[in-house]
Formats: sequence, structure tokens, C-alpha cells
Amino acid sequence: MSGLLSREELEAALRKVGAERYHNRHRFHRRQYSGQCSYEEIQAWALNRYYYQSMIPIKDATVLTRLTDTEDRRQWRKRIEDHDGLKPGDGGIERWLKLTDGLGFPRDYVISTEGILPATRFAVDAYVEFCRTRTPLEAVASSLTELFSPDIISERMSGMLAHYDFVSKDTLAYFSQRPPQAKRDSEWALEFVKTHAKTRDEQEKAIKALEFKCNVLWAMLDALWGAYVDKALPPDAWVPGTKVAVRGKAA
Amino acid sequence: MSGLLSREELEAALRKVGAERYHNRHRFHRRQYSGQCSYEEIQAWALNRYYYQSMIPIKDATVLTRLTDTEDRRQWRKRIEDHDGLKPGDGGIERWLKLTDGLGFPRDYVISTEGILPATRFAVDAYVEFCRTRTPLEAVASSLTELFSPDIISERMSGMLAHYDFVSKDTLAYFSQRPPQAKRDSEWALEFVKTHAKTRDEQEKAIKALEFKCNVLWAMLDALWGAYVDKALPPDAWVPGTKVAVRGKAA
Repeated sequence: MSGLLSREELEAALRKVGAERYHNRHRFHRRQYSGQCSYEEIQAWALNRYYYQSMIPIKDATVLTRLTDTEDRRQWRKRIEDHDGLKPGDGGIERWLKLTDGLGFPRDYVISTEGILPATRFAVDAYVEFCRTRTPLEAVASSLTELFSPDIISERMSGMLAHYDFVSKDTLAYFSQRPPQAKRDSEWALEFVKTHAKTRDEQEKAIKALEFKCNVLWAMLDALWGAYVDKALPPDAWVPGTKVAVRGKAA
Repeated sequence: MSGLLSREELEAALRKVGAERYHNRHRFHRRQYSGQCSYEEIQAWALNRYYYQSMIPIKDATVLTRLTDTEDRRQWRKRIEDHDGLKPGDGGIERWLKLTDGLGFPRDYVISTEGILPATRFAVDAYVEFCRTRTPLEAVASSLTELFSPDIISERMSGMLAHYDFVSKDTLAYFSQRPPQAKRDSEWALEFVKTHAKTRDEQEKAIKALEFKCNVLWAMLDALWGAYVDKALPPDAWVPGTKVAVRGKAA
């Protein structure tokens, strides 16, 4: 490792991580926005991704416990407000449930997360654990995938609306709300990382943290591909075409 | 949930989990012991599985911190001794490295775990975290996959020796040592679970813990299949045929 990167070099290195590793490069994403996914594949994607959405406020609360500056916490708190909403029926998780509603899943089944792939749970839990145990700088840096999300969201939305008659602007409400929030949050986080990574070692750790987070998102799509495109379903995962019910409840 | 299971019913329920979910039922295992794996697939399996091996003593030390009875800890300690050995050059991890040696990997590369699949790391770390945060009963129950390991090991060993000229009894030394250890440990753990699961709820938690552990092993093989059989390599993972070196060291 040579000397300290300038602020611009650090930002460029972080953006390079996204250009090379963000999950818009994954074959499942290409399949999804180009209209090649089956209804069942979109269902499985939404069902599994719900677990990620549901854990984001818990991840953000974990980060919140680690930020020692009041103003930093005020800024970070917005993320939790966005996902959990300000009142019942509001917030990103609720909007994600509109998508799973539209795809025919009972809400209690989705919320139970009983049907998700174990690999989805392992990846998402690894993300929360990362934010609990690494430095606050790494926790904030791992959120920087949002720098790249406005592009993937617009590609996903236009592609899905064009190709799938089972999605609508209403069911995709989650995505129409996210880009301005992601832009605001990622700009703040980028500034935080550029300011707080004061040594080359810290800069490298921030870059690695973003790589780690890209791996989380990538592994989630890998698992979806194996189970639902390659059709090698692991035990317990949601089986396409079956009537679902929360275990222990009558179907 | 109805009434308490008898000791025999509980054991039968645990064995049923293995019969239905243990990774001897996974397509990668069938491919491996029937001689259909390429050299590179066996390399990838050994490289990734090393991470699991290397974390087992850490997992077992985590469980050790949670056992309050001296005799229980004495018994459990044997697992750590088996894996870490009693002197340099000894132990299960060392024997696993003989396998990766035989498959052409430099030891420092294997030990660095730089080339493993992110999904391998997520699954293994989920197992350690499970043992850290769940009840001691669940932690012990999650080890019960060893009830089923003697069979898979004999199938794997005879299959690999019959089909692959790049493995030998020497490189497979890990497997020849494991069955008596696994038998001793799993019999002890089964007795522990049958004794300590005193309510139906605890019995169900023990069964679920074993299901969880089966999912860990299953997800590891799913990830191997996607990356090395289906050839959808995620970023950073070991690339077959490349000369490997630990990052930051000259190749």
C-alpha cells in the first residue's frame, strides 16, 4: 500500500467497485429487466428481497448505535424513517409488501420469511453482523451501494413495466420513491467516508467494505438463480405454484 | 404443537431431518462421489470447505463459553483438540491442508481464504453466529449433522479414490480420522439434546437447529455448483487454472 489517496481518488476507487461488482452486472438482473424472467422468478425475487428490506432498519439502527456524533445520527435516522415510515401503512417495507401483494403472496407469509432461501438469510444477516462488528467507517461505507442504485432502479422499473403485465406502477411504488432517498443518503455517506478515512489503511477498509456489500447483493442473486432459474430448490424454500400458508396455521 | 416427544420420538425426528436434508442428498455430492467432478471442481470444493474446517474450533470455543457444566465442557473440548491437534502438524485442519496441498494450492493462499466464495463465508459465519446467540441446547443440536457424517465420508472417500487419480489415501487423511471422532461426539451430543430438551418447545427448537445446520451445508454446495459447475463465478472467487498468490504478495 502506498500513500494516502486524495478525496477524488478515494471516490473514484469507490465508484470503480460499483462499476465492477454492483449487482446490475449479475445475470439475474439482466434476465429480469429484459423480460426473460418467468412470473415465478419475479415472485421468488420479491419474496427473498423482502427479507433484505425488512432487515434494513435493523441494520441502520445497529449503525445508529455506533455513531457518536448527534448530527451524524440525525442524518442516519432518516434511513430508518424512510423504511419504517412515519405512520402505519407508510414506508419502504410497506411499499415492498405492495409488490408482494401484487404478486399474489399473503402478507403474513411474506412477513414470516419462512419461504426464503437460507442463502438469502445468511447473506443479509452477514450484512447486519458486519455493521455491528466493524468500525463505524466500514459500516457507513458498506451502505455506498446506494450510489449505484438509482441507475439499476430505473432500468429495473422501465424493464419490468415494459415486459411483465403482472407488475404496475402501483405495485412498483417502492422503486419510484427510492432514488431521491438513495441519492441524499449516499451523498451524505460518501462525504462521511471521504472525511473519516484519514489513513490509507482506513481508505482500503472503506473500499473493502463496499466490496463486501456488493458481494452480499451478488450472493442473493446467485442463490435466486440456482433455486429458481436452474431449479435446484433447497429444502424449505418457497415452491412455485404451491398455495402458501404460514406454518402452524391452516392453509 | 402437541405433547412432549419421548426420547425415542425425538431421536427419530432428528434422524428424519438428516434423512431429508443432509447434504449427501445434494447434486454436488452425487457428482463428486460418482466421479463426474472436474479437477477444478474438486479444487474449489476443498478450497471453500477449508473455511468451514478452519472455523469449527472457533465455533466449538463459542459453544464452550456457553456450557456451564464442567463435565460437558471436558467432553466438548475434545472437538477443539481434534481439529486444532495436540502439537504442530497435527489435527483436522492440518489434515485438510494436506488435501489442498495435494490439489496444488499454496498453503498461505488457502489459509488466507481470499479465494473462497462470499456465500461460503456467509453460511459458515451464520453457523458460528447461531452458536453464539441461540441457547446452548440449540448450539449442541446444530452439531448433530455428525450423526450422518460417517456415511457421507465413506461414500465420498471410496468414490473419490475410485474415480480421481489426483487424490490418494494420504491426501484424504482427514476423512479416515473423522468417523470415530464424529461417532463419539454425535452420540454425546444426541444424549445431551435428549436430556436437556425438557419441553416440546425445546424439542422443536433442537429439531429446527439441526435443520438450520443442514441448510448451512446445503447452501455451501449450492454456491459451489453455481460458481464452478454452472460456471457463474462471482467477483473475487478463485478462478480455475490461474496461478494463485495471496494478495499483496508477489506471485
